[in-house]
Amino acid sequence: MRATLYLSAGNVVVDDVPDASISEPTDAVVRVVRAAVCGSDLWSYRGIINRAERSRLGHEFIGIVAEVGDEVRTVRPGDLVVAPFQWSDNTCPACLDGIQTSCERGGTFGAAGTDGGQGEAVRVPYADGTLVAVPGGMDGTGESLYPALLAASDVMGTGLHGAVLAGVTEGSTVAVIGDGAVGLCAVLGARSILGAERVILMSRHADRTAVGKLFGATDVIAERGDEGIAAVRELTGGLGVRHVVEAVGTPESWSMAVGMAREGGSIGAVGVPHTAPTLPLFPPLIHHLSLNLGIAPVRRYLPDLISCITAGTLDPGPVFDTVLPLEDVARGYAAMAARESIKAMLTMQP
Amino acid sequence: MRATLYLSAGNVVVDDVPDASISEPTDAVVRVVRAAVCGSDLWSYRGIINRAERSRLGHEFIGIVAEVGDEVRTVRPGDLVVAPFQWSDNTCPACLDGIQTSCERGGTFGAAGTDGGQGEAVRVPYADGTLVAVPGGMDGTGESLYPALLAASDVMGTGLHGAVLAGVTEGSTVAVIGDGAVGLCAVLGARSILGAERVILMSRHADRTAVGKLFGATDVIAERGDEGIAAVRELTGGLGVRHVVEAVGTPESWSMAVGMAREGGSIGAVGVPHTAPTLPLFPPLIHHLSLNLGIAPVRRYLPDLISCITAGTLDPGPVFDTVLPLEDVARGYAAMAARESIKAMLTMQP
Repeated sequence: MRATLYLSAGNVVVDDVPDASISEPTDAVVRVVRAAVCGSDLWSYRGIINRAERSRLGHEFIGIVAEVGDEVRTVRPGDLVVAPFQWSDNTCPACLDGIQTSCERGGTFGAAGTDGGQGEAVRVPYADGTLVAVPGGMDGTGESLYPALLAASDVMGTGLHGAVLAGVTEGSTVAVIGDGAVGLCAVLGARSILGAERVILMSRHADRTAVGKLFGATDVIAERGDEGIAAVRELTGGLGVRHVVEAVGTPESWSMAVGMAREGGSIGAVGVPHTAPTLPLFPPLIHHLSLNLGIAPVRRYLPDLISCITAGTLDPGPVFDTVLPLEDVARGYAAMAARESIKAMLTMQP
Repeated sequence: MRATLYLSAGNVVVDDVPDASISEPTDAVVRVVRAAVCGSDLWSYRGIINRAERSRLGHEFIGIVAEVGDEVRTVRPGDLVVAPFQWSDNTCPACLDGIQTSCERGGTFGAAGTDGGQGEAVRVPYADGTLVAVPGGMDGTGESLYPALLAASDVMGTGLHGAVLAGVTEGSTVAVIGDGAVGLCAVLGARSILGAERVILMSRHADRTAVGKLFGATDVIAERGDEGIAAVRELTGGLGVRHVVEAVGTPESWSMAVGMAREGGSIGAVGVPHTAPTLPLFPPLIHHLSLNLGIAPVRRYLPDLISCITAGTLDPGPVFDTVLPLEDVARGYAAMAARESIKAMLTMQP
């Protein structure tokens, strides 16, 4: 089969690899229909982190179940499924707490020895705990919903989780730091799912701002740093916002998040940094902040996200502004690395 | 009047100062009945932070209202009152959110230009927003309750706040890091007020451990660092605890807190550090932690704490293991600095 391989910084290719196959009775093999390039895929592409030569890439995909192991009960060959970016057994203590990204037996697609999402097929461990079937399947689900379903595999669930961690509820005012696909989906989740009344998006890129507004941002602030903080405070009577979604993960974005939060406010942080930032604790202490972090357990949200998408009440699909065939994956990486594209979707041969 | 003054590291004295007096119509003057020495008073005493020569000391006191300004409505001369360690107007946005330690007009007793608690009398700004009268007053409240009421002015409210921030509820398992008066009161608050089932106290001092057990600690762990973390994990089936109270505020204690928390756990942090620690954010991100910080808004809890104390259902008084007349305050500082005393209570001439 064909799959995307990392060669070196700035250099990814599609090449022949061994076919995905069942190796455990809890596995499924999924034939990929759509896959995406993630901002975190760019770390190695930009040379910020090391990655093994010829390692598989990609962890966001939807597809058709091709084969299941003997112990798989909840999905069947032919099902249209969404995979969250990590697999999970959904039965360990962390999974039962809804934290499937801390699963004892979990792992990320594309890690050493596993299939990546940016390929023709993927072996999915713990298929019952990982995959969620789309009601109606291929026949009942139009291709027009594939971008939204693909977004649910990572960025939509991650953005929503950021808003949930920030404590957003009906009527909330929330600021979102980060206008990448996750930040944009945080806007959508806060507005469309959690009922926020006012969503302030920190964004300075016209293409991203446009999607942010489409997703329900009520205010957009282009300034960063202290100027960005001042602008948010001006919009909120000087008090700051009760809810902040931190969807970047750098010291600068954390500093903004702390600076714009109201006394007693909550920060939901889903920005996964490629370095390990440290946070000065005195400001959150004297301002009584609640800092809620987590690599989003997308599996927790998937059933509801899929329901909303198939019901037509949620459409995160517009985060994909680039669509390419798998064989052109390198162009997707290049466009995203150059910030010419928010997020690239790959299509496979039917 | 007589009041405690800071002279230099290791050197505090009681000397004559101008009498406390009303300067604003919202002021009250309180004649101090009992005052306490706080762990944070030791920072300047130990020379860790600078403090102005002859500045007033102390921010924990109970007393009798001697005089009130024209606009004071809720307390009257003769009332027995508890003062939280900061004054607050109780009407600004932060106060209305129950975060009186972020009051727009707030301040700490003993700050430049104010009276300290370790003296014969204190001018209390915003008396209505600050002081809480003890039902029954002097006649109805025996001296035996004074230690408990004095503890309510800071450490009991602070310890309870730590447990509240850690999300402790009925049946919780919680670990408390710090066996100073605040940590001990966190044990008491978690057990007696919030209904925790199991409270693991990290303590290696026999006198503090004894008070911790009296306050309801079900387990005591003497180990620190990685050994302390391992011991907590062993007590919790390897999973760690869902709720951690961080009542120290150093990098080491934070590291322990993060290390012993269960996936998705909550840390309530009320340890006020004399330096400004920084926290590596990657561990709380991958372990899905909620970090809830705050300098305790004791005023929020005071009415309930006073009710429990006068009803006889709560007694944090045993945190005071040293009782001295005001004139001997230096002995209290020395004993606490040498860790020969958990906390010192000062008595005033009637």
